[in-house]
Amino acid sequence: MRVLVPFEATAPKTRLGGVLDGDERAAFARAALRDVCSAVEAAGHVPEVVATESVAVDATVTVDERPLSPAINDRLGGERTGVVAADLALVTPTAVECLVDAAADADVAIAPGRGGGTNALVVSHPDFRVDFHGVSYRDHRRIAREVGASVAVVDSMRLATDVDVPADLAEVLLHGDGEAAVWLSEAGFELDAGDGRVGVSHPTADDTE
Amino acid sequence: MRVLVPFEATAPKTRLGGVLDGDERAAFARAALRDVCSAVEAAGHVPEVVATESVAVDATVTVDERPLSPAINDRLGGERTGVVAADLALVTPTAVECLVDAAADADVAIAPGRGGGTNALVVSHPDFRVDFHGVSYRDHRRIAREVGASVAVVDSMRLATDVDVPADLAEVLLHGDGEAAVWLSEAGFELDAGDGRVGVSHPTADDTE
Repeated sequence: MRVLVPFEATAPKTRLGGVLDGDERAAFARAALRDVCSAVEAAGHVPEVVATESVAVDATVTVDERPLSPAINDRLGGERTGVVAADLALVTPTAVECLVDAAADADVAIAPGRGGGTNALVVSHPDFRVDFHGVSYRDHRRIAREVGASVAVVDSMRLATDVDVPADLAEVLLHGDGEAAVWLSEAGFELDAGDGRVGVSHPTADDTE
Repeated sequence: MRVLVPFEATAPKTRLGGVLDGDERAAFARAALRDVCSAVEAAGHVPEVVATESVAVDATVTVDERPLSPAINDRLGGERTGVVAADLALVTPTAVECLVDAAADADVAIAPGRGGGTNALVVSHPDFRVDFHGVSYRDHRRIAREVGASVAVVDSMRLATDVDVPADLAEVLLHGDGEAAVWLSEAGFELDAGDGRVGVSHPTADDTE
């Protein structure tokens, strides 16, 4: 199956600005993108990166400067197609299989992200379209209802964990084993076990060079 | 299988203090506890609440005033035993089955919580003990290694989502369908779709009465 991997190549992961500078965010985002493409491929599918500008990754890359939703929708409507966010740094081949398995019995499989987002989909229904703005998990369920598409929801922590904000980096250090996790460790990030949920700490800015 | 459900009955969910007062936190925590017990039972297992003081729930309740880890460890070491946190307001019978299935091939099954916690376990190894302090997911993997117990990690967003902080309430409104979700709705909480991840809003304090 073709799996679209949309990638904001121009200014990725701006909400990590408090802990990573622009170059670091670009490097980290590309490491996560490569992890996602590897997992998709290891699960037996064909990743196709849809990026806002050219990016070096071992997969087909199509440059599309439009916003996310129209860029994806332009590629839906034909054969069954997957969509997996490029910032799912915890994704594994098993998690991708779990998503695809869920799509066997439904017109649309949705993996919700934390906070009402949609982190991955498999779309088999010809009339289903995406809308990633707002509470997209809820919107995608509504859109499916409107076009008469059945929905399966995938219960996966790995698919639910997109890396948007600094707290998410702790999840990568805890559960990731790909390039993104290695990049973070080599950049000096460590788990910071305070009270309650763990965060990340970074020794000094100089250590990231 | 016996499934322990530890419950802090005395002052539950203090980190929700910014949005819920003490009585509200007690009511919400008890609704989530009942959801957890119902899901465990619907999955064919026997919930046993281990609470710091007596609590009204349709399950066996044992009062144990000790801290969480010794209270649980005192009940491990015999037959295979589950442990499911009382604040997993998204848990479903399917998610409980997923946890128990993972334990079929391993001495210890662990469902990690967001931020390095441990939200659920099934323990079959006689020497494994819990330690919920700190980054317990990492500690439980280490403890398993030390006693020679094999580990399976359960990939479930529903089991990973404990309700600790206000942002977690959005997950309950989005994905919950039990008493805790109903309680939140009736208390006036609504999804608040700003930019990025969704939060919750609450009309006015008076509306919760």
